[in-house]
Amino acid sequence: MKKLVRFGVSLDHHLLDDFDRHITRKKYTNRSEALRDLIRDNLVGQEWDENKETVGTITFVYDHHVPSLTDKLVAIQHRFHALVLSGMHVHLDHSHCLEVLVVKGKGSEIKKVSDALISVKGVKHGKLAMTTTGRGLS
Amino acid sequence: MKKLVRFGVSLDHHLLDDFDRHITRKKYTNRSEALRDLIRDNLVGQEWDENKETVGTITFVYDHHVPSLTDKLVAIQHRFHALVLSGMHVHLDHSHCLEVLVVKGKGSEIKKVSDALISVKGVKHGKLAMTTTGRGLS
Amino acid sequence: MKKLVRFGVSLDHHLLDDFDRHITRKKYTNRSEALRDLIRDNLVGQEWDENKETVGTITFVYDHHVPSLTDKLVAIQHRFHALVLSGMHVHLDHSHCLEVLVVKGKGSEIKKVSDALISVKGVKHGKLAMTTTGRGLS
Amino acid sequence: MKKLVRFGVSLDHHLLDDFDRHITRKKYTNRSEALRDLIRDNLVGQEWDENKETVGTITFVYDHHVPSLTDKLVAIQHRFHALVLSGMHVHLDHSHCLEVLVVKGKGSEIKKVSDALISVKGVKHGKLAMTTTGRGLS
Repeated sequence: MKKLVRFGVSLDHHLLDDFDRHITRKKYTNRSEALRDLIRDNLVGQEWDENKETVGTITFVYDHHVPSLTDKLVAIQHRFHALVLSGMHVHLDHSHCLEVLVVKGKGSEIKKVSDALISVKGVKHGKLAMTTTGRGLS
Repeated sequence: MKKLVRFGVSLDHHLLDDFDRHITRKKYTNRSEALRDLIRDNLVGQEWDENKETVGTITFVYDHHVPSLTDKLVAIQHRFHALVLSGMHVHLDHSHCLEVLVVKGKGSEIKKVSDALISVKGVKHGKLAMTTTGRGLS
Repeated sequence: MKKLVRFGVSLDHHLLDDFDRHITRKKYTNRSEALRDLIRDNLVGQEWDENKETVGTITFVYDHHVPSLTDKLVAIQHRFHALVLSGMHVHLDHSHCLEVLVVKGKGSEIKKVSDALISVKGVKHGKLAMTTTGRGLS
Repeated sequence: MKKLVRFGVSLDHHLLDDFDRHITRKKYTNRSEALRDLIRDNLVGQEWDENKETVGTITFVYDHHVPSLTDKLVAIQHRFHALVLSGMHVHLDHSHCLEVLVVKGKGSEIKKVSDALISVKGVKHGKLAMTTTGRGLS
């Protein structure tokens, strides 16, 4: 069961005005939600620092004309099949493919999968987005 | 047609040894490929700085039990349907969903979509991964 | 004159517990101060995004045995003398010097000074720390 | 004694053109030096990841009118006197001071000093710049 607690924050009114303008630009309709997001983002960073079980998405862009590249990328995903939950493939143009994988495991393991994919010759660019299982972030 | 050029880099041998150890850990089998990746990553950063047409993936984690949250998230995606190429949904546990969208457009537009989704109440965490169309990054 | 305002934030108690543990590790003795720092750090990031007048420190490490390097570094600082407020020099070991400059100006100008120094041959590493004049961050 | 080695990198000519334009903007006059900087920046990141002995600068901005703030900041620096090599103080305006400290030690220790200073009430903003002793980065 969720139990909400409420606490007060005091701020100089200029600082609060600036913050309100900032979160409006960021599309927040609610100051508490903006603060909760700042808090949660800090905690997610810490999950990764402490190598806890977490979730990341690995995005990579490649040219599928490169011989045997697709095979290599599939083989790596199979090697780490226990971690890779699922993947999506988008055809960006005649040559370029984007794939994004959802990977769950310890932070250090997710980084290994990411390194293995991004280092393959023919993969032009890759990025790991470090997010969370959501648990403990009510 | 691709035209390869070759040029020489001189390095102190200690620095080269350290770099070779570093890229081995990062799973590179080839020094040139590691250098090309450093170069391409710099150029992708610049694409985003200059607000060129590019590609990003937006990952967000939420609790689907929050009333009307799913509707809001779908509505935002429809508002930006010209930019959102596709999306994938993963059920992380009984409560938590992860969605990842592939979005194409100017960097500033992709950031707007990302802000709009991440600021919604009930979205616990979100991240934008800034990648590329791959064009011009041979 | 400073005018403090106070507002309430509601949070799930688990999230608050986690945040309290996190800020204790970060040496905060006060939850409001931790939140104000998150808020101010966001606003400083935006100052830089909007190219406002701000302050940065440029740190760079070099080997002073490299011929004419010191002259080059001094010449660059003079070229930008209107921006560079002051500098400190530390002798790290027999060969290595660290310099850190305090630079005030538009964000884009500070980045120019930083690029000019870091790109000089013989400078082994450099970093720009983006901070603030402090004004408007009560 | 320094021993230079030379190796070849092959690149598509479009990618090389883009890179050359990029480094010109970044003020490099020499392609090898730009590549060495990319390599060294990667190795410095790894020094910090592996918690080796390294160097950082801590920049913080505060309002010196806040009662007893200066005393607190000095006390913290004395607590970590074995790590803090030196500091510089700049008067930004009537109220605001900027200090920047050069700190040497294990990465985790430098972060502790940085956390201790930035968390003090009255310090409006702070940043740690992670750099290097320069050793092993010929």
